[in-house]
Amino acid sequence: MAVVSVQQALSGSIAPGSEVTVRGWVRTNRASSALNFVNVSDGSCFDPIQAVATEALANFETEVKKLSAGCSVIVTGTLAPSQGKGQKFEIQATAVEVCGWVEDPETYPIQPKPHSLEFLREVAHLRPRTNLFGAVTRIRHCLAQAVHRFFHEQGFYWISTPIVTTSDAEGAGQMFRVSTLDLANLPRDAKGGVDFSKDFFGKETFLTVSGQLNVEAYCLALSKVYTFGPTFRAENSHTTRHLAEFWMIEPEIAFADLNDDANLAEAFLKYLFKAVLAERLDDLAFIAERVDKTAISKLEAFVNAPFERIDYSEAVSLLQKSGQKFDFPVEWGLDLQTEHERWLTEQHVGRPVVVMNYPEQIKAFYMRLNDDGRTVAAMDVLAPGIGEIIGGSQREERLDVLDKRMAQFGLDPEHYGWYRDFRRYGTVPHAGFGLGFERLVVYVCGLSNIRDAIPYPRAPGQATF
Amino acid sequence: MAVVSVQQALSGSIAPGSEVTVRGWVRTNRASSALNFVNVSDGSCFDPIQAVATEALANFETEVKKLSAGCSVIVTGTLAPSQGKGQKFEIQATAVEVCGWVEDPETYPIQPKPHSLEFLREVAHLRPRTNLFGAVTRIRHCLAQAVHRFFHEQGFYWISTPIVTTSDAEGAGQMFRVSTLDLANLPRDAKGGVDFSKDFFGKETFLTVSGQLNVEAYCLALSKVYTFGPTFRAENSHTTRHLAEFWMIEPEIAFADLNDDANLAEAFLKYLFKAVLAERLDDLAFIAERVDKTAISKLEAFVNAPFERIDYSEAVSLLQKSGQKFDFPVEWGLDLQTEHERWLTEQHVGRPVVVMNYPEQIKAFYMRLNDDGRTVAAMDVLAPGIGEIIGGSQREERLDVLDKRMAQFGLDPEHYGWYRDFRRYGTVPHAGFGLGFERLVVYVCGLSNIRDAIPYPRAPGQATF
Repeated sequence: MAVVSVQQALSGSIAPGSEVTVRGWVRTNRASSALNFVNVSDGSCFDPIQAVATEALANFETEVKKLSAGCSVIVTGTLAPSQGKGQKFEIQATAVEVCGWVEDPETYPIQPKPHSLEFLREVAHLRPRTNLFGAVTRIRHCLAQAVHRFFHEQGFYWISTPIVTTSDAEGAGQMFRVSTLDLANLPRDAKGGVDFSKDFFGKETFLTVSGQLNVEAYCLALSKVYTFGPTFRAENSHTTRHLAEFWMIEPEIAFADLNDDANLAEAFLKYLFKAVLAERLDDLAFIAERVDKTAISKLEAFVNAPFERIDYSEAVSLLQKSGQKFDFPVEWGLDLQTEHERWLTEQHVGRPVVVMNYPEQIKAFYMRLNDDGRTVAAMDVLAPGIGEIIGGSQREERLDVLDKRMAQFGLDPEHYGWYRDFRRYGTVPHAGFGLGFERLVVYVCGLSNIRDAIPYPRAPGQATF
Repeated sequence: MAVVSVQQALSGSIAPGSEVTVRGWVRTNRASSALNFVNVSDGSCFDPIQAVATEALANFETEVKKLSAGCSVIVTGTLAPSQGKGQKFEIQATAVEVCGWVEDPETYPIQPKPHSLEFLREVAHLRPRTNLFGAVTRIRHCLAQAVHRFFHEQGFYWISTPIVTTSDAEGAGQMFRVSTLDLANLPRDAKGGVDFSKDFFGKETFLTVSGQLNVEAYCLALSKVYTFGPTFRAENSHTTRHLAEFWMIEPEIAFADLNDDANLAEAFLKYLFKAVLAERLDDLAFIAERVDKTAISKLEAFVNAPFERIDYSEAVSLLQKSGQKFDFPVEWGLDLQTEHERWLTEQHVGRPVVVMNYPEQIKAFYMRLNDDGRTVAAMDVLAPGIGEIIGGSQREERLDVLDKRMAQFGLDPEHYGWYRDFRRYGTVPHAGFGLGFERLVVYVCGLSNIRDAIPYPRAPGQATF
């Protein structure tokens, strides 16, 4: 008697007639005269397996008939081809052992019926038991594995950059303070301000908003590196597109320009989506049925489409000539808004688009100034159905130009000492990009709220876990 | 002319006589009459490749002869078998393009000579250019990849548990507060205390010390799950064994007891060390030569040794009868100290040891009470040369027993509402373990200070990055 996962039992790799044991949680329990059909899920794949229990079982009346959604069971029996619709195998049970009952089946939050996503966010510790969040969790895993595998196969090394940091990376987002100071008794400096020299790290520290600056230094030693770790933005945003805590992926490549960066982004995204199509078609099929009809077709189209590349200046001109009415103005020197990006990728090109070379004044100080003196080697990758999915740039490797850009942005060179420093020693052209991991999950799973793309969701003003 | 990595150029997979380009940083530049031997590293593997530059190069006198450690170069030439000692291939250069000079070679921090580890921690943005930290970075990457690969192959799903949390997991470590409150103007509640309802998440929040409690809930839906993410302890410790920020790995398995947990720990560690032996023998060889003579042999012994299992009570009795003089007392009911653990694994057994079933009063509230009523199903995995490397337990899945344990530890059941909750719905025996990722890196790389096992080291009172 072998203990197998539901995935193994349904895979066809075990000979019918074999004695097997599966362990999991009851999804449904349907009575049919002297039989009960107990669907058991263990999360190993989308489908549960059906156990056919007969009154021959000693606990048929006392236990099996009373099983309800959420009860945990150990089912032993014979694996057999199934007559049931949509399932190739079932288990003809010779034993059904009940591990754990559901305290009050009437009030069990995860009933076998659709739940509102708002409600499920409140019971995040139970929502992985639903079809949707089981699927999201497995797809998220598949994407994360593919991220690591892609970079490993391409010769990249994973670098974990500091989470608690004194650096604010690009001065972009609002930051969370990290401190061990006693709020009831804050140490004061001579001027009456808070004395951060008494704090844990001897300085004012924050949660990182990006590992990019740190990983660049490793790039200038190991050539190909990437981060994949949590980052934080303390923006008090209640939109469906923002998370205060999210995982970010940031590759960085040496001896590379913006074109190399765009090539990497294209190869990377295609690799991830191919992996999901190859490994999680079961979960995608459910999502296509219930959430987003295009779940499979959009990924297939994506992996087969050559990315278009458009210069920012050309994009502005295309938008101006489009005849389309936009809410936000289109003008050289202004950033593109989501409506513009979506028109470009969805209406104009119908494929993913890389917009390149943005005006220098709307982009971060570390992006490389182009020879025209008014644009930087920055790129955004736009995809149909989501808009911007990746942002990247070639980095300013020339220390004198970097210093001018920092002065222009009012940044203190002292504060960026080490970042300036490694450009003094064998600097090289280098480039990289960043993308929010949960944005990928949202895209693949067709989710409308990014809070559903992370295991434990939280919004400003609301932390249950 | 193909651009290849140094690893590819040295691997033997490219036919001698091929025209290749490598890009990297100069390690050494040795003159020999009308030749210069320029060693170039790109971090793709331990070894640099030697480029042989002759006076036939147009920039031989003006540039090539002036190259010093740290300069970045693009070398093109013919791949040829090398006569040099310890290298199979070299490049007979037809062009050496200098990308970036070193501003002042005399003061460049990474000279081609040994540096103190203390000094290198101050220049963490440059230390990956040294032999040691190149090796540590690649081994760290290899271990991280192997972690994900092992779990993926075994059917586990990766879960990212919250970094910012309201929960203190086990009440074990001191925690960092995470806040966006204005320290100069703290909001007050009616009693004059700080009003955390005004804070970002509407509650007092901290950096997580462990994802275990959160991942347990996912285990009770997906059966096999794991975390691999950063965790934090605000202990003001200046020892060589503690980090305030470190990465932790926490698998959790359903329908499992302490023996299953020990089996998983053994299979896991052996898989990791086999991966390092298979993939990073180049870096291990350097570490064996310079840092720890046993670097390779200890891993080989580890993967070939069946783990011993000893009951805590038996371990105490063995220690008491050992005739060994210990600094700390040995007595049933007291925790084992490092000296005891190392005697057990190094002197007594000579192999990794799993000590199981500890007194309940010295272990966390969530560990499962054994039938004897005085021990819990906890385990520590001890390894020769390092002591404790993994700590784990079967979890208390019986809600009534858990509640008694929480009361005994003075914990507020309200605060653990959701953690108690999923035990009411189809509870099952489950178990898991945790290990600090940097401890693994320390062990494999033979490091004496754990700060050298993380890319950007920091100590209490000292945050440079």
